Amino acid sequence: MGFFSRLETRANLIDSLLCVGLDPHLQELERSPGENMGDRLLHFCQRIIDSTSDVAVAFKPNIAFFEAHGAVGISVLQNVIAYIPEDIPVILDAKRGDIASTAVAYAQAVFKALNADALTMNPFLGYDALEPFLSDYERGVFVLCKTSNPSAYQLQDLTLKNGKHVYEIVAKLANDWNRNGNVGVVVGATQADSLANVRNIVSDMWILAPGVGAQGAILKTALQAGLRDDGLGLLIPVSRGISHADNPGKAAEDLRIRINRERKDIMSSMHSSVKVMSNLKKSIADALLEIGGVKFGKFELKSGLQSPIYLDLRILVGYPC
Amino acid sequence: MGFFSRLETRANLIDSLLCVGLDPHLQELERSPGENMGDRLLHFCQRIIDSTSDVAVAFKPNIAFFEAHGAVGISVLQNVIAYIPEDIPVILDAKRGDIASTAVAYAQAVFKALNADALTMNPFLGYDALEPFLSDYERGVFVLCKTSNPSAYQLQDLTLKNGKHVYEIVAKLANDWNRNGNVGVVVGATQADSLANVRNIVSDMWILAPGVGAQGAILKTALQAGLRDDGLGLLIPVSRGISHADNPGKAAEDLRIRINRERKDIMSSMHSSVKVMSNLKKSIADALLEIGGVKFGKFELKSGLQSPIYLDLRILVGYPC
Repeated sequence: MGFFSRLETRANLIDSLLCVGLDPHLQELERSPGENMGDRLLHFCQRIIDSTSDVAVAFKPNIAFFEAHGAVGISVLQNVIAYIPEDIPVILDAKRGDIASTAVAYAQAVFKALNADALTMNPFLGYDALEPFLSDYERGVFVLCKTSNPSAYQLQDLTLKNGKHVYEIVAKLANDWNRNGNVGVVVGATQADSLANVRNIVSDMWILAPGVGAQGAILKTALQAGLRDDGLGLLIPVSRGISHADNPGKAAEDLRIRINRERKDIMSSMHSSVKVMSNLKKSIADALLEIGGVKFGKFELKSGLQSPIYLDLRILVGYPC
Repeated sequence: MGFFSRLETRANLIDSLLCVGLDPHLQELERSPGENMGDRLLHFCQRIIDSTSDVAVAFKPNIAFFEAHGAVGISVLQNVIAYIPEDIPVILDAKRGDIASTAVAYAQAVFKALNADALTMNPFLGYDALEPFLSDYERGVFVLCKTSNPSAYQLQDLTLKNGKHVYEIVAKLANDWNRNGNVGVVVGATQADSLANVRNIVSDMWILAPGVGAQGAILKTALQAGLRDDGLGLLIPVSRGISHADNPGKAAEDLRIRINRERKDIMSSMHSSVKVMSNLKKSIADALLEIGGVKFGKFELKSGLQSPIYLDLRILVGYPC
């Protein structure tokens, strides 16, 4: 079963879009019990995993906070990923990107040595960097598309000769690379316009949208811009909003509820719009028929084709008076 | 002393532009002795370090090949970097790039936990990703600008509204980020045109130019395109060309000599061009004087300014017949 199918199954099963980040910042580790740094790292992560497993659609450890402690940190990360319950997908936030045999070695590092189910990747080197990851159909790749940091504009927002922005080309490429259904994208939740643009390009893909909480993104706007028509397709990662809480389990459950409340509002107003539109179409068809704007018979159109129906829209201009 | 000053001092001291890569590919480790993977990794690297230390201007371990072995690999990498003689700079090929507190954690990982002197970085997230690295004035950052892989064109060669390519903007940004002299760039040696373009933008910066050897770049063309006017500024990394050799020390020394031979040819033809140009200027000045094209006195120029000299170039059209 592919990564995104697993993710979607779980999102439906536990009714959640909340992705719980595992970012053991140095200053947070000071409050974490343990005799040495390895113990404190492990305890920090286990506390969050234990208290949020029932509401986390996925866990997202950020490898940088483990690498910062050298080999000890990587050893803990291996243990943390092994500790996460089997049925919860693990997305390694690693932003890797290199080529050829180096890309193969990174894929071995992430999928074998660490056993993550998916990772975030940097698209700057093009498809070559992703190839060894994408050849594993059971795992997933989230391609950085538009990030939420202040200097993201320096490359991602550059305008091309064809009028598109660089990040839109990345979204288009990611959509092409998704032949086997194992690619998603990363778009900062802080930028609703970009999120909506990307959603138009990658209509059925999953978007990982960081920035809710710490970076001040507005949840409702992000959901409106990024949700798929089926109310899925958007992962909302939160780290410090959960790890800083006295009760991480409650903080995560509150977030899940808040996300779902907004999501249900958006979906029901989306569905009622569809209903209004469909009623409107019916009224127009009825009215056209009533005023004689629809004629049945044999008509030769301007194009030379024959048609059994003719819509005379000129009549609308003078009707009713 | 900053990283690039150290690099330059060593390049002059040992008369070398050769950067020795430490890329322990899995298949190469099979031939490496040792009881376990950690021993084989360490032995592979120590063999290359021992035999090339006198000709390597820098060592460049690629972290992917260590990460592929999990915590054991990172532990070996720490030992490998500690094993490299103090006076040889270590460039970690890591292609990192993340933001805010994550970037701080990566800087801690590379500069503190691993104690590398410099690293390669991905520019896709803009300046924010580099900031925590650049605030350490003693270390260096090489920004990926134009890579040598087949799919590099997908983003790096996109043409912008202003006619520039994305990689040229990266070079321009890297040049701006080099306020404190701790930034270099990476440009594949396989693409001499791009290398020459980047050299024009980053006139005094160091360029790391991979692709000689394994990727078939032509050394002479790369040196012509990438060397600074002082015959420095270009690092030529080679990995498999050295590690595959029966005698890595000899392979490295042969490479150093080949690079220097080409470099000296280029520099002497560059200097004789300058000499030819300067002789040509002198002949023109002499000839102008001889035919009366140069007049001394008090002249009012079109601009209204006074000049003690007047060049009458109209005379050239009718002279000598």
